[in-house]
Amino acid sequence: MAGPATHREFFAVRTVREVLEGFRPERRTPAEEVALEAAHGRVPCEAVRAPADLPGFARSTVDGFAVRAADTYGASEGLPSPLDVIGAVAMGRAPDVVAHPGSAVAMPTGGAIPEGADAVVMVEHTQEAMPGTIEVLRPVAPGDGLVRADEDARAGDELLPAGRPLRAQDLGLLAAAGVTRVRVHARPRVAIVSTGDEVVAPSTAQLAVGEVRDASAVALAALVRGAGGEPDPRGIVGDDRDALTAALRDAVASSDVVVVSAGSSVGARDETAAVVAELGEPGIWAHGIALRPGKPTLLADCGGVPVIGLPGNPRSALVVFRLVGMGVVRLVGGATHPVREPRVRARLERDVPSAAGRLDVVQVAVRDGVASPLFGASALLSVLTAADGYVVVPDDATGVSAGAEVDVTLYA
Amino acid sequence: MAGPATHREFFAVRTVREVLEGFRPERRTPAEEVALEAAHGRVPCEAVRAPADLPGFARSTVDGFAVRAADTYGASEGLPSPLDVIGAVAMGRAPDVVAHPGSAVAMPTGGAIPEGADAVVMVEHTQEAMPGTIEVLRPVAPGDGLVRADEDARAGDELLPAGRPLRAQDLGLLAAAGVTRVRVHARPRVAIVSTGDEVVAPSTAQLAVGEVRDASAVALAALVRGAGGEPDPRGIVGDDRDALTAALRDAVASSDVVVVSAGSSVGARDETAAVVAELGEPGIWAHGIALRPGKPTLLADCGGVPVIGLPGNPRSALVVFRLVGMGVVRLVGGATHPVREPRVRARLERDVPSAAGRLDVVQVAVRDGVASPLFGASALLSVLTAADGYVVVPDDATGVSAGAEVDVTLYA
Repeated sequence: MAGPATHREFFAVRTVREVLEGFRPERRTPAEEVALEAAHGRVPCEAVRAPADLPGFARSTVDGFAVRAADTYGASEGLPSPLDVIGAVAMGRAPDVVAHPGSAVAMPTGGAIPEGADAVVMVEHTQEAMPGTIEVLRPVAPGDGLVRADEDARAGDELLPAGRPLRAQDLGLLAAAGVTRVRVHARPRVAIVSTGDEVVAPSTAQLAVGEVRDASAVALAALVRGAGGEPDPRGIVGDDRDALTAALRDAVASSDVVVVSAGSSVGARDETAAVVAELGEPGIWAHGIALRPGKPTLLADCGGVPVIGLPGNPRSALVVFRLVGMGVVRLVGGATHPVREPRVRARLERDVPSAAGRLDVVQVAVRDGVASPLFGASALLSVLTAADGYVVVPDDATGVSAGAEVDVTLYA
Repeated sequence: MAGPATHREFFAVRTVREVLEGFRPERRTPAEEVALEAAHGRVPCEAVRAPADLPGFARSTVDGFAVRAADTYGASEGLPSPLDVIGAVAMGRAPDVVAHPGSAVAMPTGGAIPEGADAVVMVEHTQEAMPGTIEVLRPVAPGDGLVRADEDARAGDELLPAGRPLRAQDLGLLAAAGVTRVRVHARPRVAIVSTGDEVVAPSTAQLAVGEVRDASAVALAALVRGAGGEPDPRGIVGDDRDALTAALRDAVASSDVVVVSAGSSVGARDETAAVVAELGEPGIWAHGIALRPGKPTLLADCGGVPVIGLPGNPRSALVVFRLVGMGVVRLVGGATHPVREPRVRARLERDVPSAAGRLDVVQVAVRDGVASPLFGASALLSVLTAADGYVVVPDDATGVSAGAEVDVTLYA
């Protein structure tokens, strides 16, 4: 085994694609039951099935008259079919009449279809002939103007799949089906450990020369929530091997995912890598990602718990966490469906150089269909706050030329 | 004034564009102060400015040696510039040396630049000549390898604009600047009133014939949260004019936005319109939107409070609320920046017919770049839960042909 100065070289630098496809520690959060009102964005751990037919009875989809379709065959404006109005259905009530040949029952939209009827004629296609009688001006076929008792779902049908975060309409369907509690994956607890002798709390009013406030933790917490996780900020640990070891062992033991912002210097990064390497088997999976910014990223699997070592620079840390960290949190939280991010196509305003063999993330401002690259030292957070989104220059490209059409992933 | 059967015709049916551009009731939520940890997605009510220069001192962006750039001019591998190493800067500490001509100070990435130095040479571009002396192999210019004391922001600079919901990186910049509390717009309180004699609570285990569970309220609550609002479900009101009047007056008096799902029948809708028309001035702004599904939508401005009357059908209600309701909530909550939604381009699998003069919202499933339209009665919620997103067929089109490339707005 080589000494600490060179041991990094024994570890793999992975491409972003390798990370997204290959880094899959086993940890999954357990199931818990939540009320429907609290289930938005939560991930069902099993398919949700319909307890009964939905809507449960045939319902009118129009205002009109429930009829036997056969009574309307051949009806036209010139030769309307006369029908006796034998009653009316009230909203929310079971019909108190049975349709028979030659009869019509007045229906509101959403009303229950009376027994014996198999279609609803829209009121616009009828006229009143005399009190108690209507004339149908157009024929209807069986099933017209209504939904069947099991048309939204049959008892036992899968209403929603496992692994897809619940959307607004999914909650609506569950409410309609009377499913008011859902078994979902618990939110992954994500420990966020900040490191660095120079890092002080954001509440520090006056910085001494050399000190910086912890910008990463609060921003990472927001991204963790966006990925369905529950952030657990663990505060700031100095560049001290024993303290870091203790903090990370504790985090791995009590969390579903551990995120640590490594120190920014090479020495501090090596120290973090050495500590992470001893947290559990199988250990370090990637020692560097072919990504700019974000190369000095560490990925480890410590007994199934993913440990993500981010660059010390907050801007790089946020780029890496968006690109690969949020997906890890979603994976641990049971999400198996792809995530959709806001995107827009735009024309690149200036050339963007890049090196082949590395994926570049370029921050851009977007105005009127033009994406303007924002440059500036990667230590500057203001570049990220000025950006509307970012453009990815793939590994195999050596840059993108001004005028090229690019996909911009937008910050929501 | 015409009677209740025809009074609707006196009101304008508006296009979606007219609604998005023109429906702007005056209500805005007041300011409140929140901690940075709770500020994600919140909307600043004034620009946030930097209390001091950021980072506050010049910092190294590389591991290397702080130097006077002039000492390195002309340096090359063949003719390196020798410099005396007079000290080292530790992370988080003020430098205890002053650089002078011919000197070099060892620097970690992120360390404070000592007085007298104006650049940092990367360690890779140096070699150790003898203990205490390095040789610089490449020249640096002033400013290389560092960020200035005010490079991220100058004292007084606008860090973040008013009206743009705070993103993860925005929180990071505020933390870096020591801004730990932010003045933001209060979340709009959005009353959600369900109506209809047929509507019962989702917890109803067994439906009687004619009854349906309230699917809209819980789904609308999720969309309200997505727009930054605080949903306030007011329960179910029967089709009773006095009860509806009382419920809506109370809602308007105590909310920032009122959403009411009108009954599904024409009679119930007319009743809702008549009640809303008397809630306050200037009153009804749109009586119908040229939109399918969603035409029977009511928009009113009741003393500055927007009242949104949604179709009784939950699927139509959700389409309308996504398209125009969420924007109203954002507006009231002070957001002035455009919202980005996930979008993907896809090829349409089948023809989609449409009528000119009306915007059509077509639900689609998306697989491998193909968008398959999902048809089915608008009463069916399962069409929405099967959908990955929707395609908008604009007012002036009479449909879209199979094979056409379309923009799909994805459900996040």
